[in-house]
Amino acid sequence: MERVINFNAGPAGLPLPALERAKNELTDIGGSGMSIMEHSHRGKLYEGIHNEAIALLRELLGVGDTHHVLFMQGGASQQFAQVPMNFLTPGKSADYIITGHWSERALEEAPLAVPGAKINVAASTKQDKTFTRIPSQAELELDPNATYVHMTTNNTIYGTQWFHEPEVGKVPLIADMSSDFLWRKHDVSKYAMIYAGAQKNIGPSGVVVVVIRKDLALAGRKDIPVIFRYETFAKNNSLFNTPPTFGIYLVRNVLAWAKDLGGLPALEQRNREKGRILYGAIDAEPDYFRSPVDKAARSLMNVVFRLPNEALEEKFIKEAEKAGMVGLKGHRNVGGIRVSTYNAVSPDDVKTLAAFMKEFSAKNRP
Amino acid sequence: MERVINFNAGPAGLPLPALERAKNELTDIGGSGMSIMEHSHRGKLYEGIHNEAIALLRELLGVGDTHHVLFMQGGASQQFAQVPMNFLTPGKSADYIITGHWSERALEEAPLAVPGAKINVAASTKQDKTFTRIPSQAELELDPNATYVHMTTNNTIYGTQWFHEPEVGKVPLIADMSSDFLWRKHDVSKYAMIYAGAQKNIGPSGVVVVVIRKDLALAGRKDIPVIFRYETFAKNNSLFNTPPTFGIYLVRNVLAWAKDLGGLPALEQRNREKGRILYGAIDAEPDYFRSPVDKAARSLMNVVFRLPNEALEEKFIKEAEKAGMVGLKGHRNVGGIRVSTYNAVSPDDVKTLAAFMKEFSAKNRP
Repeated sequence: MERVINFNAGPAGLPLPALERAKNELTDIGGSGMSIMEHSHRGKLYEGIHNEAIALLRELLGVGDTHHVLFMQGGASQQFAQVPMNFLTPGKSADYIITGHWSERALEEAPLAVPGAKINVAASTKQDKTFTRIPSQAELELDPNATYVHMTTNNTIYGTQWFHEPEVGKVPLIADMSSDFLWRKHDVSKYAMIYAGAQKNIGPSGVVVVVIRKDLALAGRKDIPVIFRYETFAKNNSLFNTPPTFGIYLVRNVLAWAKDLGGLPALEQRNREKGRILYGAIDAEPDYFRSPVDKAARSLMNVVFRLPNEALEEKFIKEAEKAGMVGLKGHRNVGGIRVSTYNAVSPDDVKTLAAFMKEFSAKNRP
Repeated sequence: MERVINFNAGPAGLPLPALERAKNELTDIGGSGMSIMEHSHRGKLYEGIHNEAIALLRELLGVGDTHHVLFMQGGASQQFAQVPMNFLTPGKSADYIITGHWSERALEEAPLAVPGAKINVAASTKQDKTFTRIPSQAELELDPNATYVHMTTNNTIYGTQWFHEPEVGKVPLIADMSSDFLWRKHDVSKYAMIYAGAQKNIGPSGVVVVVIRKDLALAGRKDIPVIFRYETFAKNNSLFNTPPTFGIYLVRNVLAWAKDLGGLPALEQRNREKGRILYGAIDAEPDYFRSPVDKAARSLMNVVFRLPNEALEEKFIKEAEKAGMVGLKGHRNVGGIRVSTYNAVSPDDVKTLAAFMKEFSAKNRP
C-alpha cells in the first residue's frame, strides 16, 4: 500500500527519509554486518551515532554550553515524578501552571514523588471540563521562593500552545515540551530544563530528550536512587546504563532530515504555513467548522475542531480514512476532530486535508 | 557485508528472521501505509502486536493466571530502584544474594529508594575482586520475615549462572533474569517476580519484561508516584503511558522466531549444546585456556575464559574479528575473553569459534 497521510497525535508520522535510511541498513549498518540494535552501546559505531544525535540537537536548537542534552527513558510521564524527586525537598515548594491534561498529571505526581513538599497551582485555565486558552502573565500567581515553575508548552488534547515564555523571574523554569519540541527555535537560555518524549516531533516512543542547565543537574538531590538523578545521565553522557539505542538512532535520522530541510527556521516556516492553511479552512466556514480554542492560543501542532454534530464528525473521520488520511479522531476526553501536524507532516498533506474539508462540508450539510 | 557472528554481551545479536521481518515492513506494516513506529499505541494494529507479544511470553514460559506479564522502560537498572520502592517500607527488611556486579548495583540502590529500610546481604560470593561461583543453600542467611529475597540468575560479567532456585520459604523471591531470561523454561510459580532487560535474549534495548504475581502487584505501595507502581502497568495492560512500541514489536518478532524454532525446550537444547562445545574447547586445552569459574556455576549465556597472557588475549580478539566474530572482549572489570551465547547465537556459530580457538592455540604458543 502507499504511505498514508498520518495525523496521529503520537506516536506520530515520521519523515520517510529517516525511515528509509533505517530500513536500508536494518540488518547491516555501515558495513558492520550487524543491525544498529545489535551493536554494543559501548562500541564506536553506536557511540558515534549517539554523539551525532546530541550534536544535532545542540546545533538545531542552539543549545549553549550552559546546558546538557540527555537521553532518558520512561516517557514524559516519568519526568513528572523525576523532576520533583531531583529538585524538591519536604517543606520546599514548586509552582505548576495548569493548561491541560498533561500539566494535571505532572501536578498529581509531584506530591507523591516528594511527600511534604508544597505544590502550588500558579494558574489554571480549566473552564468547566476543558482548557481552551493559555493564561496571561497577570494571572500567574508565582512564588518568588518556589524551587521551580513547571509548565506544558503545548496541550495535545485541547489544542492550545504557548507562543512566549512566562516571566518567572529568577525561579528555574521547567517545561514539558513533548508535543512541540523543535517546532521552531526556542531561547533555551530561558529554561532551566526542557523535557520531551520523542514520539511527536523527533522520533519513536521510548526516548525522552532532556535539556538541562548544568548547574541544576549537579544540584539535584543525592539521596535518591542513582538511576533517577539527572546528574548520573549528565556525567555519563546518557550511557550510565544501556540506552534505547535504536530509538536514539532513529532520532538521529529524524534530526539529520530536519537539518537537510534547513533546520528549525525552515521547520517553523512549514509549521506556520500548515497552521495558516488549516485554521484558514476552519475559519472559512464558521457555520460548519468550529474551533473551541482561544484564537491567540491556537496550537500549530494539534489543531482541534468540531463539526455541526457528532454523527458528521464520525463520518468525516471515516471518509478521510478512505481518502488516505488517518489519526483524525479527537482525544476521548473531548471528542471532535484533532489534526496533529507535527514536523513530519508536510504543507501538502495539510492542503489535501483542507481540500477534503471543503468538499466534505459541501456534501454533508446537517 | 555479510552478517558477522555476534557474541556481544548486550545489546546482543538478534535472530535474522526477526530483523528481516522488521526490515520488510519498516515503512508499511500490514498494508497500513505506516511504520509500526508511526501507529498509535491505542490503535488496533499496535494493540494486536502488543497482546501477541504478551501471549507469546505466557505461552513460551508457561506463565499461569497467577502472574501478570508487563512491559516497562528504564532497563533492569531502574528495576533496582522500583522493586524496593514498591514493596519495602522504612523499618522493614529485604535480603539480597550477591553474585556479581549487577546484584551489587541492586543492593546499592535499595537503601536510596527506601531510606530507613533494612537491606541485608544474605550471601555474597565475592572473593577478592571477582565472583566465581554461586552460593550453596547452606550459605544463605535468610530472614524468614524479610519482605523479599532478591537474586541475579546469571552474572554477565563473571560468567556464572544459577541452575536452581534457592529455597526461600514463604518469602517472595524476586529475580533479575536480564541475561538468561527465556534460555529455558523456568518454574515461574517459584518466583514472586522476574524482571529482564530485553537486550540479551529477547529483543532490543529499551524494553523491560516484568513477570509479577498478581497479588504482589496489587499490594505495592500507593504512596509512590503512579508511574513507578507495578499496579499501574498491571491494571492498564502496560498501556498506561506510551510504551516503547517498536521495541515491543521487535520482542514479538523474536518470540515468534523462538516459537517457530520449537519454543523453550528447543532453545534449552541449543543452549546446552553451545555450552558443551565451548566449555569442551576450553577444557580440551587446560594448559592454554583457563576458565576462572567454578565448574558447577559455568554460565551457558556468558562463557568467560583466559589465555596464557593478555597479549595473546588481545591478539585472539583481533584475529577473531578478522574472521567475522565480534564481541569477544571481556568486561573491563575482569579482562580476558567473554563469549555471550544468547538465544540468537546458533550452535554453528559456536562451532566456528571453537575451531578458531583450536587453530589459534596451535599457532600462538606463549
